[in-house]
Amino acid sequence: MNPELFFTKNTKAALQNDPPGEWMPPVPKYCIPLSAGYPAQSLVPYNEMNEAVKDLIEEEKDLPFQYLGSKKVNTVKKFVRERLVERGVVLLEKEILVTAGAIQGIDLISRTFIDRDTWIVVESPSYMEGLEVFRNYTDHFITVPIDEYGMQTEELEKTLKNRKEKNLPMPKLVYTIPSFHNPTGTTMSIDRRRHLLELASEFNFLIIEDDAYGELYFDERPTPIKAMDSGSRVFYLGSFSKTIAPGLRVGYVAARSDLIEPLAWFKKDLDHPFAEATLGSYLIQTDMKKRFEMLRKVYQQNCKTLISSLEKYMGELATWQQPSGGYFVWVNIPGINTSEILVEAMQAGVSYVPGKHFFVHEQEGLSYLRLSFSFVSREEMVSAVEILSQVVKKHLNN
Amino acid sequence: MNPELFFTKNTKAALQNDPPGEWMPPVPKYCIPLSAGYPAQSLVPYNEMNEAVKDLIEEEKDLPFQYLGSKKVNTVKKFVRERLVERGVVLLEKEILVTAGAIQGIDLISRTFIDRDTWIVVESPSYMEGLEVFRNYTDHFITVPIDEYGMQTEELEKTLKNRKEKNLPMPKLVYTIPSFHNPTGTTMSIDRRRHLLELASEFNFLIIEDDAYGELYFDERPTPIKAMDSGSRVFYLGSFSKTIAPGLRVGYVAARSDLIEPLAWFKKDLDHPFAEATLGSYLIQTDMKKRFEMLRKVYQQNCKTLISSLEKYMGELATWQQPSGGYFVWVNIPGINTSEILVEAMQAGVSYVPGKHFFVHEQEGLSYLRLSFSFVSREEMVSAVEILSQVVKKHLNN
Repeated sequence: MNPELFFTKNTKAALQNDPPGEWMPPVPKYCIPLSAGYPAQSLVPYNEMNEAVKDLIEEEKDLPFQYLGSKKVNTVKKFVRERLVERGVVLLEKEILVTAGAIQGIDLISRTFIDRDTWIVVESPSYMEGLEVFRNYTDHFITVPIDEYGMQTEELEKTLKNRKEKNLPMPKLVYTIPSFHNPTGTTMSIDRRRHLLELASEFNFLIIEDDAYGELYFDERPTPIKAMDSGSRVFYLGSFSKTIAPGLRVGYVAARSDLIEPLAWFKKDLDHPFAEATLGSYLIQTDMKKRFEMLRKVYQQNCKTLISSLEKYMGELATWQQPSGGYFVWVNIPGINTSEILVEAMQAGVSYVPGKHFFVHEQEGLSYLRLSFSFVSREEMVSAVEILSQVVKKHLNN
Repeated sequence: MNPELFFTKNTKAALQNDPPGEWMPPVPKYCIPLSAGYPAQSLVPYNEMNEAVKDLIEEEKDLPFQYLGSKKVNTVKKFVRERLVERGVVLLEKEILVTAGAIQGIDLISRTFIDRDTWIVVESPSYMEGLEVFRNYTDHFITVPIDEYGMQTEELEKTLKNRKEKNLPMPKLVYTIPSFHNPTGTTMSIDRRRHLLELASEFNFLIIEDDAYGELYFDERPTPIKAMDSGSRVFYLGSFSKTIAPGLRVGYVAARSDLIEPLAWFKKDLDHPFAEATLGSYLIQTDMKKRFEMLRKVYQQNCKTLISSLEKYMGELATWQQPSGGYFVWVNIPGINTSEILVEAMQAGVSYVPGKHFFVHEQEGLSYLRLSFSFVSREEMVSAVEILSQVVKKHLNN
């Protein structure tokens, strides 16, 4: 019995891509993981979570463990709604769908709107797990480069005009991470955000605005594209993974209710009431504004340390851009293939994510790598960058 | 902007069906919910879950809240593997995929193997949420009736031979709940289990064996179809929802590794590490054999109470079959349309699930209803059946 004979056309197409999550060899324990895109132990409120669970069970007993779940699930929605109002996005409750991390939002949107005939636009580079999900639905990608002001919407406009003239298939969706972009750390300018919305209306496409890092600005808070979305073309994706705990897997999608309804339809029963109730209980106990402030300060200081280490050890070897928020610094090391030296770097004691994994066309990213300042201590960061610089120097001198 | 213009073909087809979960009007609070297919409060180990979370966090700190999650996730797999060995199913760890409830297993299998061209076989009646998920992928159902020995595999054989002769499309998958079937409570005989496997080999299809109720036998433990699956055509679905807590949303799929791999591919990141780790921590603390025994006794006694109430109040109005395990009794009331009297029954103080929702062809189920003996107290059960009998009598006399 050959299972492939039973696969659907889509499954066959999807499985021709690289298997998901296979983009990194295992990181040895002795390594300083600048690859790690998650919060440091000290920033995960695990004791508070313990309290949250305790209170939840004392108050609601079996409810959080039943299908229909606890009333605390509504607390999550309420928090999201109120927080979004402060960020300029005014929504009804029925316009918010709580999901198992922002990635379930990407999956549900894809499932509803993307099949093997669909063209979509992604930034180049883009969030690698996002690309993996999209590849499960289509191989038709249009890529738009990023510069220091985010997605080059002028380039997108040219491409769209050109495709229209030539009668080529037009994209249905544009996926963007406008604020503290993963992996580049850049933020889209307000003019380009407006331009993107204009293009959406002119060329009739929907936008996925992935704002997973939106709360983690250092100085200035960017205005979400969704806040200017008069045509209701934007799916706004948010997440508690970067600000509370990734393992809870709670995120959300916000959009016009007739765009949310089909997602809710497919999500049916792919729910996780206990995790959502735990988060709800935690949110009630926590001064989240204070927490956001604390996180911003810690990450800003972490970022400064990473940047000054790069200046000290790699100033003549590499270039990078100063992020204004988020988790990552995106480094370009001309003359180096970052995938090729990864194992050696890990043996020397430092890991990173090679740039190629963030590109639809991998060869565009060979000299790049992504460093995270969210997870390791500042002392470790300094050592890690020094180790990395030595590995790089050795290869440049060969 | 009309969102429908952006839908895929599949989305358009799926959304033409009834919206998911809309099969029951809200059950008023004063009602005795014989409709409730979940465990009673006293059977949900919420205090033990509190302990499990406390121990988990003390031992592993932030780990259960990170993406990669805790080591306790492996405890779940290990438990499943060892338990399945006792039930005659010997598997490698890589042949087990932990999922967000058994329903995510149904969804992942559907996603991998079913599209709008695929024919599948379901029992008539069948698990309504399962049918809802399948309908998101196809409308091509072949139904096979159930009698007191489960799915009538002789009927399936006739249908398959007939389709083959006529050169009609053949089904790729057969979905069955062989033990303590939802909603009928029946159990497939061992001969029919073997016959189904023979048919799978002869007519080249895969089998989904949904064993969500498998641990809840009253006297005799049925042998899973998977235990006899020499051809490796069976996806075995298990769940902790009926034996521990539905709101944790932890289930699993077990199958040959080349059938599991594509599911794992699509599942990517649709994980829930904190809930899995909590379950792992709970399993370490708990004598599960003792717990299973306790549950069997309670549910058997509940079932007896429900059946004797039916005998007392509805013996002349209705027929049903004695279940040998599970959660449900399936009642046939000739001359009554159970959907039509539901609101009145709820006003009188009792809820149930009307039979039609369990059928692909709803008209086949009009006189049936499903009663659950898992949730309400025995005293309430007796009152509820009395109330139901009065509503039924009133309608039969009209």
